[in-house]
Amino acid sequence: MLTLRHLAIDTVRENVAFLNRRCTRYHVEDFLGLGRVEVRNDGRSLLAVLNVVDDPAIVGPDEIGLSDPAFGQLGLAAGSAVQLVPPTPPESFELVRAKVGGAALTDDQLAAIIRDITDQRYSKIEIAAFLIACASFMTTAEVLGLTRAMIAAGTRLDWGGPGGIAGTIADKHCIGGIPGNRTSMIVVPIVAAHGLPIPKTSSRAITSPAGTADTMEVLANVDLPVERMQALVREAGGCLVWGGHVRLSPADDILISIERPLAIDTREQLVASILSKKAAAGSTHLLIDIPVGPSAKIRSAGEAVRLRKLFEHVGDRLGLTLEVAITDGSQPVGRGIGPVLEARDVMAVLRNDPASPADLTERALLLAGRILEFDPAVRGGSGNRRARELLESGAALASMERIIGLQGPPPAVATLGSLVAEVASPADGIVSSLDCYRLARIARLAGAPTDKGAGIDLLRKVGERVRRGEPLYRIHAGTNADFTFAQAHAADNSGVVVG
Amino acid sequence: MLTLRHLAIDTVRENVAFLNRRCTRYHVEDFLGLGRVEVRNDGRSLLAVLNVVDDPAIVGPDEIGLSDPAFGQLGLAAGSAVQLVPPTPPESFELVRAKVGGAALTDDQLAAIIRDITDQRYSKIEIAAFLIACASFMTTAEVLGLTRAMIAAGTRLDWGGPGGIAGTIADKHCIGGIPGNRTSMIVVPIVAAHGLPIPKTSSRAITSPAGTADTMEVLANVDLPVERMQALVREAGGCLVWGGHVRLSPADDILISIERPLAIDTREQLVASILSKKAAAGSTHLLIDIPVGPSAKIRSAGEAVRLRKLFEHVGDRLGLTLEVAITDGSQPVGRGIGPVLEARDVMAVLRNDPASPADLTERALLLAGRILEFDPAVRGGSGNRRARELLESGAALASMERIIGLQGPPPAVATLGSLVAEVASPADGIVSSLDCYRLARIARLAGAPTDKGAGIDLLRKVGERVRRGEPLYRIHAGTNADFTFAQAHAADNSGVVVG
Repeated sequence: MLTLRHLAIDTVRENVAFLNRRCTRYHVEDFLGLGRVEVRNDGRSLLAVLNVVDDPAIVGPDEIGLSDPAFGQLGLAAGSAVQLVPPTPPESFELVRAKVGGAALTDDQLAAIIRDITDQRYSKIEIAAFLIACASFMTTAEVLGLTRAMIAAGTRLDWGGPGGIAGTIADKHCIGGIPGNRTSMIVVPIVAAHGLPIPKTSSRAITSPAGTADTMEVLANVDLPVERMQALVREAGGCLVWGGHVRLSPADDILISIERPLAIDTREQLVASILSKKAAAGSTHLLIDIPVGPSAKIRSAGEAVRLRKLFEHVGDRLGLTLEVAITDGSQPVGRGIGPVLEARDVMAVLRNDPASPADLTERALLLAGRILEFDPAVRGGSGNRRARELLESGAALASMERIIGLQGPPPAVATLGSLVAEVASPADGIVSSLDCYRLARIARLAGAPTDKGAGIDLLRKVGERVRRGEPLYRIHAGTNADFTFAQAHAADNSGVVVG
Repeated sequence: MLTLRHLAIDTVRENVAFLNRRCTRYHVEDFLGLGRVEVRNDGRSLLAVLNVVDDPAIVGPDEIGLSDPAFGQLGLAAGSAVQLVPPTPPESFELVRAKVGGAALTDDQLAAIIRDITDQRYSKIEIAAFLIACASFMTTAEVLGLTRAMIAAGTRLDWGGPGGIAGTIADKHCIGGIPGNRTSMIVVPIVAAHGLPIPKTSSRAITSPAGTADTMEVLANVDLPVERMQALVREAGGCLVWGGHVRLSPADDILISIERPLAIDTREQLVASILSKKAAAGSTHLLIDIPVGPSAKIRSAGEAVRLRKLFEHVGDRLGLTLEVAITDGSQPVGRGIGPVLEARDVMAVLRNDPASPADLTERALLLAGRILEFDPAVRGGSGNRRARELLESGAALASMERIIGLQGPPPAVATLGSLVAEVASPADGIVSSLDCYRLARIARLAGAPTDKGAGIDLLRKVGERVRRGEPLYRIHAGTNADFTFAQAHAADNSGVVVG
C-alpha cells in the first residue's frame, strides 16, 4: 500500500497521479505503458493519468501524489493507504470505439458515455477520441441523443415553486464571433421591462477581446451564486451574470475544454452544447442569433440555414420554443471593442444618447422584438415596436439600473486605457470592409479583456467616407508593452480596407 | 519575464508547464482556457500544456516550471528568463482538421504532420485527434504516405559500409496476441546458422505476460546500444535484443503511446507502424506472421487476408521483399506462458529434447523455412527441410549459444516461481478450447512479466484427453498476493473448456 498525498497542482480537468520513479511498492514501468493507473482503497476508486517524479520532496518512494481535482474526487484523507491496480478503462469507451468504426449510437449509449465523462472517468485523449469520432459524422438523432444526455448528466434549474415564476422563461444566445456585439445587455433590460423573465448567463472571453460577462463586469458584479441569481430574476425580471457558477450541463464544460484547444467546431457539437445549457437553465423560449459574414464564425447563408435547421430540429424535440435570427455579421457592431468601450456603447443606447451607435440599437431592438413576440399578448409583427417603446421611454434604462443595483458594484473600477494611438486611413475613399477577426486580435493584444480599459474604438464603419490621414480607429491600452504590441500589429494590417 | 525552473516530473511524452496561480507576471486565466502556453526566449520556443500550482515550493509566483521532457526540449539553463505568449498550434494541425472533415491527405501533408508530432509540437489530444481521424477512414495511398513519413522522420540503420553486410537483411514480425508464441528465439538462430543476417529487435510486454525481449532476458542481456547490436550481427549473423535503444521511427513510438491506452488498433495503423519500424531498421526481406483465432487479435480468415493485402501493397511500394504467413492462433503455442517457462520451451526445442512442445517446433520451422527461401540459393519449397536440418544438427543451438555469449549474461538470474497451484479439470473429456486472452490475463496476474518466474505451465492442449480432477495447467507465482489473485481469477474462469 502507498500513502496518499495531496499535491497542490491543478491538472485542469484531468486526474493525474504522481508516482516516485523509485516507488518501493510497485514497478513504475508496469503502469507506464498503460498510461494510467487505478487508485483504490476499499470501495473507492479513481482512474488517473500517470506522471513519474524524481524529486522525493514532491512525492516520496512510498507515496502516491494526486493532483487537485483527482484528490478531491477520490475523497480520501491525505495519509490514507491506497493500492494501485492496472486501469480498467470506462466500459462506455467500447461504444466510442464502435463510433470510430462507423456505428451510430443510441440514446442510451450516448447517455452512458456522457455519464462517464461527467464523472471524470475519461482521460483527455479519450474525450478527444469521442469528439473527433462525432466530428467525423453524426446523425441528427445522435445530436438529439447527445443533447438529452448532456442535460440529464447535470442539474436543471427550476424556476417554479413557492415565489417562483410560472410559464415562459426567455433566453437568447448568440453563436458569437462579432466584436462589439453586446446586444444582450440591451435586450435583457428591454425584455425584463416588458415583464418576461430572462435570466441571462454569459461567458467570459477566451479568445475574443470581451465576453458579455467581461463587459457587464465594468458596470456590476457578475459573480453570483445560483440562489442569488434566481432571487434577482424573481425581483428584477432579468439578470446579466457570469455562467461559471451555474453548474448546468457539466459535460458541456468538459467537452468544450477539449474542443477549444483542438479548434474543432462542428454544427452538431455547437447545437448540442448550446441547447443542453439552455434547457438545463430552465429556459422555455429561446432566440438564437447567427451572424453571417466573411470574417464571422458562419461565413455563408447556406451554412447558416443548415445550422438553423439543426437548431430547430433538436430544439423542437426538446420541447423548447426556439427561434433563429440570421443577422449581418459582416463587420463589428457598435463602436467599441473591449469591455469599457462596449459598456460605454451599451449605456449610450439605453440612455437614448443621440451619439449612440445606431447599428447596435437596431440589432438589439430586432432581437428583443423577436423575444417579446414569445409573449402571446404581443401581436405578431409588433415586437420590434414594443421594444422600441420600452427603450425610448426609459423603461429599459430603469430596468438595467435595477439589475445593476441588485447585482451589486463591480469588483474594481475600470477606466478607459490612457495610452491612445490613432490608426490613420492610407487613402481617400470609402471604408469597404472591417475584418472582425483581425480587429478582435488587435484589441486582444492591446490587453482586452484582462485589462478592461483596453481595446479599439472604431471611428469609421463600412460605407463611411474617410480622407487620407484621418483616423479609422483608436487603440486604447494600459501598459506600454501591450500598447506597442497592438500598434505594431495594426501597422502590419489594420483590418480596415478603404476602397 | 519569468524564471525557468526544471521540475523533476516526467510527464511522459507530453510537454507540461507549471505556473503558480499567483503568478506575478501573467494572468493564469489568460492561458487556462487555451489549454496551452508557448514558452519563449530569443529564438527558442516550446508549446506546453498548462498546469497550475498552488504550492510555491514547487513553483514560485515569478517562476515557470517545465516537466522533464519539456525542459530538455527547450534547451535553456535553469534560471533563464522566459516569456509566455498565447500558443500558436502547429500549422499542420489544420490538415488534421481537414482529415476530420473527410479529406484524404497527400504524402507531403502527412509528412508535415508526422514531422510536427516527432518534434513534440502536438499535445496528446492533438495526436489522439489525428489517430481517430485516421481510424475513421484512410485510403491505401494514405497508409503508404504515412509509412513513408514515419520512416523519414527518424534515422535509418545502415548495414553496409566497411565491414558491413551487403544484400539481404532478413527480419520477421508477429502481430502478436498468442501466449507462448516465442518462435523468434528459434527462427533467429536457425536463419543465422544458415548465414542470412537477421537482426531481430523485440519489445517488452505491455499488456501481455511476456514479450520476446522479456523471455530472451532470462537467457542473456537484451539491453544493447545500437552499435553493439550491429557489431554482434556482423559476428553472429543475428541477435535477439530489446528495441528500446534503437530510436527508429520515433513517430511510431509516440503514436503507439496514445493508441495503446485508447485500444484503437486499426489495420492501417498496424501496417504503417510495423513497416515503418522494419524499413527504418534496414530490413530488406520481411516475413509477417498473422495468427488467426477466436481469442487472437485477428479473429477471421477474411480479416487476415485484408490485412495481408495491405501489408503486401505498402511493403511492395517501399521496396521490401515481404511475405505473409497466416498461422493458427486458436490456442497458445508451446507449454509455458511467462518468461522463464517460455525460455525453457525454447531451449528444449533448440536442444531437440523429445519432451519439447511439438507445436512450437513446427511453427518455428514453418516460419524459418519461409525466411530461408528469401535466399536465392535455397530451392523453392525446400526451406522447411533446410530449417529442420539446421535445428536437428545442433547448428541452431550452437548459433543461439553464440548469440547468448555475445549479448552477455542476463541482468539477474530468474528462476521459476516457487508457489505452485494446479488448476484441475471439472470433468472427464477432451479439451475443446483454450482462451488466449484469459490465460494471458491469469499469467499476468501471477506476476509475469515483471516477475520473470511467474506464469502458467499448460499440461493439456486442445484435443488432448483429460480426466476429472486431473490438472489442466499449473500457476507459478513468486509472491503470495499475486498467487492468490491469479488463483481466484482462474477459479472464476479457467480459460479452458473441456467438452
